[in-house]
Amino acid sequence: MSRVLVTGATGFVGRHVLDPLLRAGHEVHAVARRPADGDPRVTWHAADLLEGDPDVVGEIEPELLLHLAWYAEHGRFWSSPQNLNWVEASLRLLRAFAGAGGRRAVLAGTCAEYDWSTGVDAYDEASAPVRPVTLYGAAKHGLHTVAAAYAAQAGFELAWGRIFFLYGPGEAPERLVPAVARSLLAGEPAETTSGTQVRDFLHVSDVAAAFAALLDSDVRGPVNVGSGEPVRIADVVQLLGEVAGRPDLLRLGALPTREGEPERIVASVRRLREEVGWAPRIGLREGLQDTVARLRDR
Amino acid sequence: MSRVLVTGATGFVGRHVLDPLLRAGHEVHAVARRPADGDPRVTWHAADLLEGDPDVVGEIEPELLLHLAWYAEHGRFWSSPQNLNWVEASLRLLRAFAGAGGRRAVLAGTCAEYDWSTGVDAYDEASAPVRPVTLYGAAKHGLHTVAAAYAAQAGFELAWGRIFFLYGPGEAPERLVPAVARSLLAGEPAETTSGTQVRDFLHVSDVAAAFAALLDSDVRGPVNVGSGEPVRIADVVQLLGEVAGRPDLLRLGALPTREGEPERIVASVRRLREEVGWAPRIGLREGLQDTVARLRDR
Repeated sequence: MSRVLVTGATGFVGRHVLDPLLRAGHEVHAVARRPADGDPRVTWHAADLLEGDPDVVGEIEPELLLHLAWYAEHGRFWSSPQNLNWVEASLRLLRAFAGAGGRRAVLAGTCAEYDWSTGVDAYDEASAPVRPVTLYGAAKHGLHTVAAAYAAQAGFELAWGRIFFLYGPGEAPERLVPAVARSLLAGEPAETTSGTQVRDFLHVSDVAAAFAALLDSDVRGPVNVGSGEPVRIADVVQLLGEVAGRPDLLRLGALPTREGEPERIVASVRRLREEVGWAPRIGLREGLQDTVARLRDR
Repeated sequence: MSRVLVTGATGFVGRHVLDPLLRAGHEVHAVARRPADGDPRVTWHAADLLEGDPDVVGEIEPELLLHLAWYAEHGRFWSSPQNLNWVEASLRLLRAFAGAGGRRAVLAGTCAEYDWSTGVDAYDEASAPVRPVTLYGAAKHGLHTVAAAYAAQAGFELAWGRIFFLYGPGEAPERLVPAVARSLLAGEPAETTSGTQVRDFLHVSDVAAAFAALLDSDVRGPVNVGSGEPVRIADVVQLLGEVAGRPDLLRLGALPTREGEPERIVASVRRLREEVGWAPRIGLREGLQDTVARLRDR
């Protein structure tokens, strides 16, 4: 059992990570601007990481840090200058963590760090070229460069979970899965692109569980967090039609595909499976069923 | 003529850059914690870039930014956590610059961004692998990753001058050239390693002139700032012995070579020469003569 500090604990991934951390027996401290009600075993701390040095870290003295907080506003996060603020806040956080005697930190990276023009079958952490084209991907990758060198210098372990495509409860309503599901549940046509692009989808609970496992491992450096399963976006949409019982409302191809969309973005999950020893528990059909069921219940 | 803001203007490179900027006809504003006396044509602003948002940028509204400020304490800068503070300060500075309508920024990078284990003849900006092993190199490179993407997004030009090895007036006294020169001038033996490593040396006035030229060009991205001339460190020491008139006091090989010292670190200067259109004016012998003469006069 260790004392864990989680940032972004009210976010999309963060709200799913508290359970696995508690189940692993950790003393869980969560930082958020507006702490959530919920599991009484979690100790919440109200703090804005964007505002100056995070004194809260020195008060908690965590052994482990799981840093998930970032600017994540749908549609804006790719290019927002807020990405710079989060690089700054993350560096302050890491300095505070080292200063408080922290032992191991895991941070959230992104598949958008990789060079998406390569069209490789699967991105391997050690060999796939890294060349982010978005400000979000560049900010994450730049942070990783600095953070990894700082961890080595300051004497704490650092791992970097590169998240691929995720879906599930809590997802921004404008995004593909909830947008299609809500149309279908409302009995309205769901217009999408033809969806020929291949992606790597993982249910957000599994993403969170993977991060919890990575935190409890001694693996360092970048680790892809994905399913390793190539799936066409059209197949995700078809599955949504099936589990919602309204395949007739699907309108694949009604919207034009965005220029420059990469054909294929799939994770190599060798490190995650073999080194961290973690595998997904929620298949795509089951995960989409769960997502649709929760939207139906609301 | 443009309004230029220079940071680190009292530093090793910075104090040599004001002249070429003035000669190019610019309106020069300099930021430093402790402004220097000197050329009355330079407008000095007292500000600590490490402390919060740099309001001074909004007051000056510079078209051009030459950002040279960084932590540079001899022997400590390679591994100091201050490198993180400077990443943060630099990102704040760039946001302020973009917010004030800035058009073009040039920042100081380092040859320590390159993968020094490759042993290539000369590091080329486009093809040489980048893999910093020091915190200093990683901080600079991480900053470049974020800054380049931010500039593209925010709509200003950004160039990144990767400084190789520099020497000249104002150099920290513990470093090779002044340390050897001072011993010789004091009539004491100058103990050095055997100095078989090959490096790329450029006089600090030329480094500063190269940055001024880069600022006035429209070249973007990384540009090596070096001489392109491979020189053994032993040859630098021998030349110092000659120009100081005391080759008899040299003790090459008296000190052990540090473990893991790279054999060869030399810049490809194609971009600097052909794209920026700049070439060094001070040869190594002349530059060392100048350095020794100034130390003698003190």
